[in-house]
Amino acid sequence: MKVAILGYGTVGGGVADVLFENSEEIAKRVGEELDVKYILDIRKFPGDRFEAKITDDFNAILNDEEVLIACETMGGLKPAYDFTKALLEKGKSVCTSNKELVAAHGPELLAIAKKNNCQYLFEASVGGGIPIIRPLLDCLTAEKIDEITGILNGTTNYMLTKMDREGCDYADVLKEAQEKGYAERNPEADVEGYDACRKIAILASLNYQKTVHYEDIYTEGISKITKEDFDYAGLLGKNIKLLGMCKEIGSKKYAMVAPFLLDPENPLYAVNDVFNGILVHGNMVDQVMFYGRGAGKLPTASAVVSDIVEEAKSIGKASDIVWDDEEVALSDKGELQFAYLVRVAGNVNTHDFKTVFPGAKELNAEILAGEFAFETPVMPEKEFLDRFEKLSGAIKYIRIK
Amino acid sequence: MKVAILGYGTVGGGVADVLFENSEEIAKRVGEELDVKYILDIRKFPGDRFEAKITDDFNAILNDEEVLIACETMGGLKPAYDFTKALLEKGKSVCTSNKELVAAHGPELLAIAKKNNCQYLFEASVGGGIPIIRPLLDCLTAEKIDEITGILNGTTNYMLTKMDREGCDYADVLKEAQEKGYAERNPEADVEGYDACRKIAILASLNYQKTVHYEDIYTEGISKITKEDFDYAGLLGKNIKLLGMCKEIGSKKYAMVAPFLLDPENPLYAVNDVFNGILVHGNMVDQVMFYGRGAGKLPTASAVVSDIVEEAKSIGKASDIVWDDEEVALSDKGELQFAYLVRVAGNVNTHDFKTVFPGAKELNAEILAGEFAFETPVMPEKEFLDRFEKLSGAIKYIRIK
Repeated sequence: MKVAILGYGTVGGGVADVLFENSEEIAKRVGEELDVKYILDIRKFPGDRFEAKITDDFNAILNDEEVLIACETMGGLKPAYDFTKALLEKGKSVCTSNKELVAAHGPELLAIAKKNNCQYLFEASVGGGIPIIRPLLDCLTAEKIDEITGILNGTTNYMLTKMDREGCDYADVLKEAQEKGYAERNPEADVEGYDACRKIAILASLNYQKTVHYEDIYTEGISKITKEDFDYAGLLGKNIKLLGMCKEIGSKKYAMVAPFLLDPENPLYAVNDVFNGILVHGNMVDQVMFYGRGAGKLPTASAVVSDIVEEAKSIGKASDIVWDDEEVALSDKGELQFAYLVRVAGNVNTHDFKTVFPGAKELNAEILAGEFAFETPVMPEKEFLDRFEKLSGAIKYIRIK
Repeated sequence: MKVAILGYGTVGGGVADVLFENSEEIAKRVGEELDVKYILDIRKFPGDRFEAKITDDFNAILNDEEVLIACETMGGLKPAYDFTKALLEKGKSVCTSNKELVAAHGPELLAIAKKNNCQYLFEASVGGGIPIIRPLLDCLTAEKIDEITGILNGTTNYMLTKMDREGCDYADVLKEAQEKGYAERNPEADVEGYDACRKIAILASLNYQKTVHYEDIYTEGISKITKEDFDYAGLLGKNIKLLGMCKEIGSKKYAMVAPFLLDPENPLYAVNDVFNGILVHGNMVDQVMFYGRGAGKLPTASAVVSDIVEEAKSIGKASDIVWDDEEVALSDKGELQFAYLVRVAGNVNTHDFKTVFPGAKELNAEILAGEFAFETPVMPEKEFLDRFEKLSGAIKYIRIK
């Protein structure tokens, strides 16, 4: 069976490597050998072991009837969207690691796949090498899933782990992450939570079978987290993680991305470094967590190739993933209930924080001169924000999960 | 679509509950409603909400052409084996939580299912509600999986967690587990590792696509673990977990069940209480962990019902699980390499343990008068056992993962 790889960057190169290195195992599972016939890239790769397969002619792939499966590992919306659409319209199955494209055009591309008796799969778009989309759709089928909470971005988790363990400051750890190649020169997509936002939008959409627009999800990154925040978190025996979550309460649906203080009892607490973890709560199974490498060349490629295998076993079969383009109306996050860690300027003995936040508990240590911190009781976010606004000397707050 | 439940015990009752409570979600996923037509049990359940469905007549189920799926939640080999065989021979799909039966007769029952164009599924036989078998077979398809290590028994994990956290002794924590209903009055199957052994035998067989006989797996339980062992483990910053593992090194395959000292860096370290965790290592994806409730009525039933859903979507399709009855020849565990925690009677300053174990590091604290402990370098188990035999005053050892 002939396969094409679109985009010979990190993930595309990984896909070629995985197909080559594990060709025997993969052939056993598919029932025949998978052969990469084309690798699409506008660049040349002289001396590369797959040099002979590299082409810059997309139409050669599109019009080659032997090619039944293409994996799109270009990233971005253009030209990935047009290429994917054209391939699906020809009845060729496509799989991808491209979360931007899936979050922006998932339902449309799935509908085209269905119409043309082929598949559009995107296991690698969330959680890198971790099986999460197929388990969600094919395994937890006896469940009413009411919450999905995940550490969905490896770069920020690496940074937060380092800040927690070594007491580093944000700027230093970002610099190091950039030097190690974990963070981009422009780190916005990671540190401002945009990447995690797209991923939770995909998971939420698949869970609700309708579209959660990522633009509708309240998103807060980690760029304002300081080492003092970790010091305060430590006083509570907690650490800080960037979480993407979607939650259903009664008939209302919520989604958000934000840093949270996590308790050691939470399975996500122990998800460190570049690893990702996705915690799914169902009404029967309680908590299930999926853990592994959320990024990286080979882990991500492994997930893409597992989609190729699935597509190779489903030739001629229409996609059965249900993801309508009908929009999910997310409810106001102000209705969600949390406790909060609050930092405030002033003296703990004379400040009136307990009048503004009855039941608040101060943290018993001076981390920075001239300020102190306290933990609020659990309350709706709207109420919290109203009170926080009235707090004299208010510096910042972080939610507690 | 009509379904039968064989055995109205804890799991069977849970299956009826899950099918009833989540009927709407399940019908959406199957494409039609699933209706429990029979519940087989020799007992009567007066006043039970499903009383009218309860029957003691297996043949009524076997000969009812409307019944296309049966779930066997009786446990044990007899009559579960005969019933399963008869149903599969009639072309009815069967799913089960019965690890004894799967470990003993998996390949034979799968062959019958294949021959009769139906399915035999057993997601709930390992890891309770955790999706592990389907992810292993259907998701990690791009991988060469070289190791599976799991905390596979919730009862012993509850006990070990309690011993670790509260410094309880084995006998007390066993008594408490029995009072809570986590451990049986005869706790042997759990505490001696027999349950974990059957589960790792199933996972290993599915991974190798051949049969790993559970009788061939070296199995050591937790009944000899004491609170002092935890004190020593604590000195090393580690805890103790009962692990089932299978491992491939070159062309050699190994499997064992034993208590191990685990480092906090190991994702299984944070798997506590009755939870299970299964860590899979693949050559491309590195580590992936699946975590959740490894036992309990509803989580286990959730996995059984996910198999029912899968079978309902695959009516007339022959099982494609590859598990030959050809035997896997396991290699001698003496070839596996570990470090060891060793307890020895005597005085750390005068004892010749460093002659017997060059490079050993003593643990710097007196836990019990008249003995001390040390950590060995990593060495093949055969070499370790030879040396351990020569150690004067040797008390015990525990492997370090």
